[in-house]
Amino acid sequence: MKKLTIVKVGGAVLEDEEKRKDFLSAFSKLKGHKILVHGGGRLADHYLNKLDIELKKIDGRRITDQETLDVVTMVYAGLVNKKVVAELQSNNQNALGLTGADLGLIRSLKRSNVPVDYGFVGDVESVDNYKIAQLLEQETIPVFAPLTFSKEGQLLNTNADTIASELAKSFINSFEVQLIFCFELSGVLDEHEQLISEITLSQFSDLKRKEIVKGGMIPKLDNAFSVIQKGVKEVRICNYSSLAEKSGTKLSL
Amino acid sequence: MKKLTIVKVGGAVLEDEEKRKDFLSAFSKLKGHKILVHGGGRLADHYLNKLDIELKKIDGRRITDQETLDVVTMVYAGLVNKKVVAELQSNNQNALGLTGADLGLIRSLKRSNVPVDYGFVGDVESVDNYKIAQLLEQETIPVFAPLTFSKEGQLLNTNADTIASELAKSFINSFEVQLIFCFELSGVLDEHEQLISEITLSQFSDLKRKEIVKGGMIPKLDNAFSVIQKGVKEVRICNYSSLAEKSGTKLSL
Repeated sequence: MKKLTIVKVGGAVLEDEEKRKDFLSAFSKLKGHKILVHGGGRLADHYLNKLDIELKKIDGRRITDQETLDVVTMVYAGLVNKKVVAELQSNNQNALGLTGADLGLIRSLKRSNVPVDYGFVGDVESVDNYKIAQLLEQETIPVFAPLTFSKEGQLLNTNADTIASELAKSFINSFEVQLIFCFELSGVLDEHEQLISEITLSQFSDLKRKEIVKGGMIPKLDNAFSVIQKGVKEVRICNYSSLAEKSGTKLSL
Repeated sequence: MKKLTIVKVGGAVLEDEEKRKDFLSAFSKLKGHKILVHGGGRLADHYLNKLDIELKKIDGRRITDQETLDVVTMVYAGLVNKKVVAELQSNNQNALGLTGADLGLIRSLKRSNVPVDYGFVGDVESVDNYKIAQLLEQETIPVFAPLTFSKEGQLLNTNADTIASELAKSFINSFEVQLIFCFELSGVLDEHEQLISEITLSQFSDLKRKEIVKGGMIPKLDNAFSVIQKGVKEVRICNYSSLAEKSGTKLSL
């Protein structure tokens, strides 16, 4: 089976000029078929703030009303996505910027407004992996912004980690999929701030119980383990500048 | 030869919910291969204003400094482009939102800063019509925002009329190209505000001399006639809601 590497990178890395360059250089060195999925959280907050749009969150999760959706669409699909695409092109990487709406690639359902109305937020319903595979066969590198759409033509805000995971799961029968979540740390760290090079599900439970792994790392790892359980061959969490070096933390069941 | 229809629509039509729906419905009815190129001027001005970014123009032409480029990238490639794509998808139109940077489709040269420094503005250098034709063969409908990029990976602001014209010219050997510029009027109007259904280059010169055709219509028609002179089979200027009806003003040499 052919290999496919799916990389998810957070907005914080892409919004910093220096870090973006380092990341895109590392990403450009990856061989074979690849897909990039990016976030863009902080920059959206910056523009919401400048536009005097109140930042609405419940339990740390953004409420996406109409004017917030407009801003995240601008920032994610416009500013962040196209800068990344243009810079990858200058690295001779045949990047194509996408949202789930483009070519109808990722359709989602607007999340129920009960018990909490998160607004224009979508939960992935289907991935058109045939069309994405066709792009890959043409040596295209899809670069996804974290937006999907409903069959009614409504754009919906969708978590980037989820998009990366759904893409990975959709390809387990057609590619040997490696999924990489990269960020500013070197991987999952132990109580001495040392890198854990491999982590199993039971070790993760243990570290969670001891509160060594905490905060935003918990949903990230929960999500990553669920992807392995669905048959994705390899999942890693690593630093944004060292993708090609098999570094970071490798997850296993 | 296969037919290809290239439609250019201005931002004013797309920013109005009702007009956008009418336009997209008319565009969806067009048969065969088609490409959409859109502007987005007024909405960019709106956000520049809200973000307290000074609107810089010389002789009515925008000066695109770094912060202005960021905003037009957000508005054109993000907000306007993706709304159009999502709505076309809900019309069962297989739209793909693009800038010139995506797939490296339209490369441009940053305009010289002498005699006037327009900032990050690009003049089209090359169109990858092979890759665009490949998209068309796959029943994809490319939807271009008015941005291109340089080989150094710099995004550049580029006039939407120019992009539509350059696309049309690049396809004259592979398709029978029809280029439609659509806007809020019914076409080119005479001194009694009546539609002129066909206009030749010498009639245009005459109407220009008599100041019946004036203002923004002059560069529009100048540009449109230059496209016919380069071998594009048909150029029309018509209302945004009646694309499929062979209405408006047909240009001929």
